[in-house]
Amino acid sequence: MISVEEALKIVQANPHTTAVVELPLMASVGKILAENILADRDFPPFNRVAMDGLAFCFEKIDFQKIVIENIQFAGEAQKTLQDASKGIEVMTGAILPLGCDTVVRYEDINIQQDGEAKWTSLSIPKEEIVKGQNVHVQGSDRHAGEVLLQKGIKISPAEIAVMASVGKSKVQVHSTPKIAIISTGDELVEIDKTPLAYQIRTSNAYMLSAALRQIGIEASTFHLIDEEKTLYQKLKEIIAAYNILLLSGGVSAGKKDFVPAILADLGLEKLFHKVAQKPGKPMWFGKTPTGKIIFALPGNPVSTFLCFCKYVLPTLKSESKHEEVILDKDIIFKPDLTYFVPVKTYFEAGKMMAKPFLGSGSADFANLTDCDGFVELPASTQIFKAGEVFGFVRFR
Amino acid sequence: MISVEEALKIVQANPHTTAVVELPLMASVGKILAENILADRDFPPFNRVAMDGLAFCFEKIDFQKIVIENIQFAGEAQKTLQDASKGIEVMTGAILPLGCDTVVRYEDINIQQDGEAKWTSLSIPKEEIVKGQNVHVQGSDRHAGEVLLQKGIKISPAEIAVMASVGKSKVQVHSTPKIAIISTGDELVEIDKTPLAYQIRTSNAYMLSAALRQIGIEASTFHLIDEEKTLYQKLKEIIAAYNILLLSGGVSAGKKDFVPAILADLGLEKLFHKVAQKPGKPMWFGKTPTGKIIFALPGNPVSTFLCFCKYVLPTLKSESKHEEVILDKDIIFKPDLTYFVPVKTYFEAGKMMAKPFLGSGSADFANLTDCDGFVELPASTQIFKAGEVFGFVRFR
Repeated sequence: MISVEEALKIVQANPHTTAVVELPLMASVGKILAENILADRDFPPFNRVAMDGLAFCFEKIDFQKIVIENIQFAGEAQKTLQDASKGIEVMTGAILPLGCDTVVRYEDINIQQDGEAKWTSLSIPKEEIVKGQNVHVQGSDRHAGEVLLQKGIKISPAEIAVMASVGKSKVQVHSTPKIAIISTGDELVEIDKTPLAYQIRTSNAYMLSAALRQIGIEASTFHLIDEEKTLYQKLKEIIAAYNILLLSGGVSAGKKDFVPAILADLGLEKLFHKVAQKPGKPMWFGKTPTGKIIFALPGNPVSTFLCFCKYVLPTLKSESKHEEVILDKDIIFKPDLTYFVPVKTYFEAGKMMAKPFLGSGSADFANLTDCDGFVELPASTQIFKAGEVFGFVRFR
Repeated sequence: MISVEEALKIVQANPHTTAVVELPLMASVGKILAENILADRDFPPFNRVAMDGLAFCFEKIDFQKIVIENIQFAGEAQKTLQDASKGIEVMTGAILPLGCDTVVRYEDINIQQDGEAKWTSLSIPKEEIVKGQNVHVQGSDRHAGEVLLQKGIKISPAEIAVMASVGKSKVQVHSTPKIAIISTGDELVEIDKTPLAYQIRTSNAYMLSAALRQIGIEASTFHLIDEEKTLYQKLKEIIAAYNILLLSGGVSAGKKDFVPAILADLGLEKLFHKVAQKPGKPMWFGKTPTGKIIFALPGNPVSTFLCFCKYVLPTLKSESKHEEVILDKDIIFKPDLTYFVPVKTYFEAGKMMAKPFLGSGSADFANLTDCDGFVELPASTQIFKAGEVFGFVRFR
């Protein structure tokens, strides 16, 4: 049995293979960028007016009375200040007129008009005006040719904005893997059926599908009966058609827990079976010779979900965001296992606190609806005190 | 000009109207539940075996040698222990056989077999066995009829699992609003065009679309030119067809900032215009007599995004998750405005620290790709010290 840390390392060292595909910009949200994105122009690409108001040449004007000779709108070709002692009205987003270097906001001037003639004085002391103010200088954020986004990052709305601004209407990203979710367990019936006294409705496949849907992946779901021949044949077909398999159930010590043996018969390499953790100890992980990845998760719903959130989700999202929480209550746990406890987090003076919901163990999934993640209590310790800091596996 | 707190209160007091719709379970992920979900049976619905192993009657057996008389698989009708001094092999997920009350794991027993006869002894001291262990007692998590999920909550994978287990193949949720994103600004060109020297490509509409797509909403996008008649006519049509409008640009003091006046002409009630914040001061918010909601956001990309994340997103998600961060560097900001600074967060001894990226202001959106949210520095203070705790508006 290996530790949680070792298991995670093995999972990370065996990523699923992906192809690079070109998608329309908007379809790339949430995907992993597969090319560097360069600035095609400076950011901003011209000296850009940052406030609606009056532009002028700071050294040349008389702050008592500035005559206004023109107006420069956003989207217009650059105008030129004809008389260096005068000013030009300017709008946010416009190119700064040639000959101007400073902008004062409308709020800080008093424009007066007499027929065609227009002039203004300041409504604030001239000492408050700084040369160059309210001008967003060409290239001050980024220079043309600079790498704006590195390949390998996850694309969020901010990256979409940057790519739009450099004209990437199509973008190279890593393809989303084809995922099959396979539940096993003869006690399970479909959700639109009425279970007999000793049966329950299937829920794991729905939970995993929902979690994948949240990261933009539509998985296929299968339910297989606990019968060796059927399992072998069906798993063979599914492995042929998908990149990643998520099984739930059939990996423990039961007389019908055929999954590990069948996966071996199908030629898969077992990378680990059993992790020193609670819940989720019987977890199995392996791959095919061609690099297809199989996560065989224990079937208790809390075990399934923990293993999914801890091992599967970070590899699919290509990110392992480290979060920490502070336990708000003592927990004692003696077995030599990493203990993942459902918790509800809240903030207290800048600290993320975690209130544990011990519930009744790995089948008590109703409990999870009150929680937003698992606190990770290391195997090395038996007494976990309120106030101590531990890792956090977020699921909400 | 109102404060950030007042603005947020007004937005929260004017939610968009939604209809209640019935969706297939899987389509409800991320939506707001519009009905209470009750337990149709106890959770678990029967005394459920929680470990593969041997079930028996704790008071009646001889721990030296337990004869095994039968086997109970998951999904089989309940069997009955015929001889109270004997045991039955049981599999995880099975109903506990009648007459048994305790389960010992396979790992803790040594089964021996001679022909048809099968018996076992314990491989652990009998003092370690507790009556009732490894039995997940009927109703111990929830009772039949109990409310499992309250209407109004957001549906995540955990709620999907609960609803699957009670047979909700269809579920009542609040409909997703129809959203139109409208950018204005004559300096903007489409992303597949090469801008002239004084033009830039449009990016806000893509950024907002991407952010909505992340919460499962496909918005329509429009670009309107800064011309009064066109704006009036087009906005009238769009308001008729959508529940929520997100405008970007045209709300400040510029000579072509027609949006607030046109919205008034169209009969909208202005709920506020201008918020004491940086960036995003010119923000406008209002509604139609029939309750359609219009957010008119300033056009600078960082302003647009901040206003979206702070005011729009929480109402769409029907949740206002409060997060806090600890500033890792002093910031001085004198104006009497709430200052939202892009930050990158990281954890240090259980504390969520925030490293500010001051950048060059509200047009420097390239900056956002290094950050994961905004720290919210209140208007009441001018000096913000490293180590102090502030609110956090997450965008990643």
